[in-house]
Amino acid sequence: MSITANDPNRKTWIETSPNTDFPIQNIPFGVFLTRDDIITIGTRIGDTAIDLGALHQLGYFEGIPLTDDIFLQDSLNDFISDGKKTWRLVRNRIAEIFDVENETLKNNEEHRKIVLFALNEIEMQLPVVVGDYTDFYSSKEHATNVGKMFRDPDNALLPNWLHMPVGYHGRSSSIIPSGIPVHRPQGQKLINGAKEPIFGPSRLVDFELEMAFITTDANHLGEPIPIEEAEDYIFGLVLFNDWSARDLQKWEYVPLGPFLGKNFASSISPWIVTLDALEPFRVEGPKPVKKQFPYLQYKGKKSYDINLEVSIEPENAVETVVAKTNFKYMYWNMAQQLAHHTVNGCPVNSGDMMGSGTISGPTPESYGSMLELSWRGEKPVQLKEGGSRKFIEDNDTVIMRGYCQNKKVRIGFGEVKTKLLPVFKK
Amino acid sequence: MSITANDPNRKTWIETSPNTDFPIQNIPFGVFLTRDDIITIGTRIGDTAIDLGALHQLGYFEGIPLTDDIFLQDSLNDFISDGKKTWRLVRNRIAEIFDVENETLKNNEEHRKIVLFALNEIEMQLPVVVGDYTDFYSSKEHATNVGKMFRDPDNALLPNWLHMPVGYHGRSSSIIPSGIPVHRPQGQKLINGAKEPIFGPSRLVDFELEMAFITTDANHLGEPIPIEEAEDYIFGLVLFNDWSARDLQKWEYVPLGPFLGKNFASSISPWIVTLDALEPFRVEGPKPVKKQFPYLQYKGKKSYDINLEVSIEPENAVETVVAKTNFKYMYWNMAQQLAHHTVNGCPVNSGDMMGSGTISGPTPESYGSMLELSWRGEKPVQLKEGGSRKFIEDNDTVIMRGYCQNKKVRIGFGEVKTKLLPVFKK
Repeated sequence: MSITANDPNRKTWIETSPNTDFPIQNIPFGVFLTRDDIITIGTRIGDTAIDLGALHQLGYFEGIPLTDDIFLQDSLNDFISDGKKTWRLVRNRIAEIFDVENETLKNNEEHRKIVLFALNEIEMQLPVVVGDYTDFYSSKEHATNVGKMFRDPDNALLPNWLHMPVGYHGRSSSIIPSGIPVHRPQGQKLINGAKEPIFGPSRLVDFELEMAFITTDANHLGEPIPIEEAEDYIFGLVLFNDWSARDLQKWEYVPLGPFLGKNFASSISPWIVTLDALEPFRVEGPKPVKKQFPYLQYKGKKSYDINLEVSIEPENAVETVVAKTNFKYMYWNMAQQLAHHTVNGCPVNSGDMMGSGTISGPTPESYGSMLELSWRGEKPVQLKEGGSRKFIEDNDTVIMRGYCQNKKVRIGFGEVKTKLLPVFKK
Repeated sequence: MSITANDPNRKTWIETSPNTDFPIQNIPFGVFLTRDDIITIGTRIGDTAIDLGALHQLGYFEGIPLTDDIFLQDSLNDFISDGKKTWRLVRNRIAEIFDVENETLKNNEEHRKIVLFALNEIEMQLPVVVGDYTDFYSSKEHATNVGKMFRDPDNALLPNWLHMPVGYHGRSSSIIPSGIPVHRPQGQKLINGAKEPIFGPSRLVDFELEMAFITTDANHLGEPIPIEEAEDYIFGLVLFNDWSARDLQKWEYVPLGPFLGKNFASSISPWIVTLDALEPFRVEGPKPVKKQFPYLQYKGKKSYDINLEVSIEPENAVETVVAKTNFKYMYWNMAQQLAHHTVNGCPVNSGDMMGSGTISGPTPESYGSMLELSWRGEKPVQLKEGGSRKFIEDNDTVIMRGYCQNKKVRIGFGEVKTKLLPVFKK
C-alpha cells in the first residue's frame, strides 16, 4: 500500500510555519488531555493538535476497519496492535482530511471546534504503556569512548561487541514524557581511591542522547523474528534521554549490568513519529567491520538520517547546544536489534520500547553524553552565559531535539525537555 | 488488624488432605479460566478452586470496600492496588465463609455449584500483568559458587556484593505460568578456547530455583521506600524458575548483564501465597558480614522459612529430586531488596515482580541451579532411573515445589512445572 501521506508536495489548510517539525507529511501519534480533561489519542500539524477520538466519532475514518473506541484510550497500545496496514490507512486519511483542497472539515466550523486544539490547551501524556523496555548499546563510537575511559584504550571494544547488538533490560516504570522533572538520585558509590563505598546524592548525573523505537505485537514465545520482517513490527520512534548516574552505575554494574544508575528516570518526546514518515530519510549504515551472523545480515537501507542535538539550559539562563550528532552513525540498526532480541524466542509486544544506546558520532562535538563530551570531567563544557559543566547540575534543564530534512520536507520529533531537581526531600 | 485467616486451629468444610499445600490457613490468590471459559480471580482450598468473582456477585464480601468487578478481571493488579488492609479483610472473610462451622455457603447447593470447581475444570493463568520484573542475586552461597567458577576462587564475591542486594532488570514478556512449555533457545556462544563465536542451540540450558515477590503500588517517581515500610508493599510470593542459557549468557553479559541468556522464559507457580499467610514462618536471616548502610538496616525477622526443592523428570520416566534448599538462606531479604530498588526514586507498581536470585544453601545438595549442582558439568547429577544430567535436556520437565511447615500448619506454593522442548521450528 502506498504511503500517500508522505507526498512531499501536499499542502494543508492548517496554518504551519515553514520550519515546523510537524508538516502535514509527518502525522505523528500521541496521547493528550484536552481542555475538557478528556484523554484522547491525537496527532499534530504545525502547532495544532488534532483529537483523533473526536474525528473518528464524527465519521472521518469511515471505511477503515477501526473499533469505535480505538482513539478514546489513554495509550496507543491497541491502535499499534492493529498493525502497519491500519497505521498507513489512518495516516493517509489524516493527510486527506487536512489537505488544502479538501474542504469538508475545513469548512465545518462546528467540527473544527471539537477536533482542533492549540498546544497550550492540551497536556501531553506518555503515548504508550511500555510493557518492556530494552536499551541497546549500538554506537561504535560511544562503546569505544566508554571502553577507552574505563577499560583498555587499546582494546576499547569488548570481544562480543562487533558480533551482536549488545543490550540489556531497562525499567519501564520510570519512563516519563517530556516536561516531567527528575530528582537527583541518591545511592552507593565508591570514590576513586577509597576502599569502602559511601552513600549520598549522585555527583555525576548525565544524559544519554538516544532514539527509541516502539514495537507492535511481533511474535509468540519461542518464535524468532527474521530480520527481513523486523521493520514491519516497528511503529515509530521518539527522542529518548536515558538519564544516568555515572557514579552509582560504576559501583553497582558488575556483574549484572546497570540498575539504580539508570532506573531513576528515562524521558521521551511525546509524539511518536512513524517509521513510515521517515521513509524518505533511509540511508546506508556503516559497513560491518566483521562478518555478521546470517540472522543479522540485511539488504537495503536500514539506517535513518536524523539530525540530533542536546542543549543544557541552566536556571534563568539561555540554553547552550552541547552536542550535535546523527542517528545514522549507529553501527547496529533497528532491524538488527529486533532480530537479535527475538532470535532466542523472546516475545515482543505492542508498546515495547527499545532504546538505541547513546548516539555518539565520530567527532568530539558529536558525543551523546556528558561523560564523553567532558571526557570524564577532564574537559568541562563551556556554556554560553559563562560557567561550564562536567555533568548536569541541579535545576539544569536538558533538551534534546531531532529532525530529518531534505530539499522538500522536514520531519521532526519536537523535543524532550527535562529539568533535574535537587535530591527528593519528604 | 489481626489476620484471623491464619488461625491454625480453624477447620474447613471443604474436603482437604492432611498434607495439602492449601489448607484453609493459606488462601492464595490466582486467576483461572472456569469450565464455562470465563476468566476470574480465585482462591484454592485443598483441591477445590473457588471463584471469587462469583462469590462477590453472590454478596459474600458484603461490608468490604470492593468494586463490583474487582475479581472479574484477568489479573490481580487492581485488587493488589487496593492495599494490604483490603487483602486482609478478604482473606479473613474467605476463612469465615469456608469455616467448618459456617453453614451459609456449605448448605447452599445452588451457590456451591456456581462457586466451586475441581482443579481439572479450570486452567490457571498468569496471576498478574507484570509491569516490571527485577531479578536479584541475593544468595551469598550462589554468588560465591559462581564467582569461584568464573572468576577468582579466592575472591569469589565482587566488592559491591556485601554492600547491596545486587540486581538487574529482567524481561516481563516472557514470564509464563506453570505448565507452558519452553523451547531451547538459539543464540551466539563462544566455545572454550575458540577465537570466534558460533551460532546455534544453547547446549547449557539451566533452571534457577528462586522465589519471586509481587508488589503493590509503592511510591512515586523520586520517592524512596523506607525499609521499615517495605513489607507493607509486598502482596505475596510465587515459586520462580528463572530459565538460563549459560553459554549464551557467558558470551553476551559483559558489560551490560544477562539478556538473551535469560529472557527466553521465566516460569512461575500460579497461586500467589500472601505474605500474611507466611507470617508464622518468619525467621532471623543470616548475620551481616559487613556493616550495612542505614537504608538497608532492619529490625525483627524479615526472612522466611520456606522449604524448596527441584526435580527433573525425563520424558516417560519418574522424577528425581536434584536439589533441596530453603528461602531462609538468602543473605539479602525482600525488605532490603525493595528499599534498595527505590532508594534512587525508582517507582514500583502493582504487579511488579522481584526475583530473589538463585537460592543456594551451604551444602552441595542445596544448590539452586545445575551450573552449581553439576559444578559446570564436572559432576553430572545422577537420575533415579539411570542416566545423568549436567544441564537440562530436550523433553525434560523441571518441577519446583515449596512449602512452610510448623507443628500446626503447612502453607505451600504448589509447583511450577515446565517442559523444555527442542529448538523452535517454523
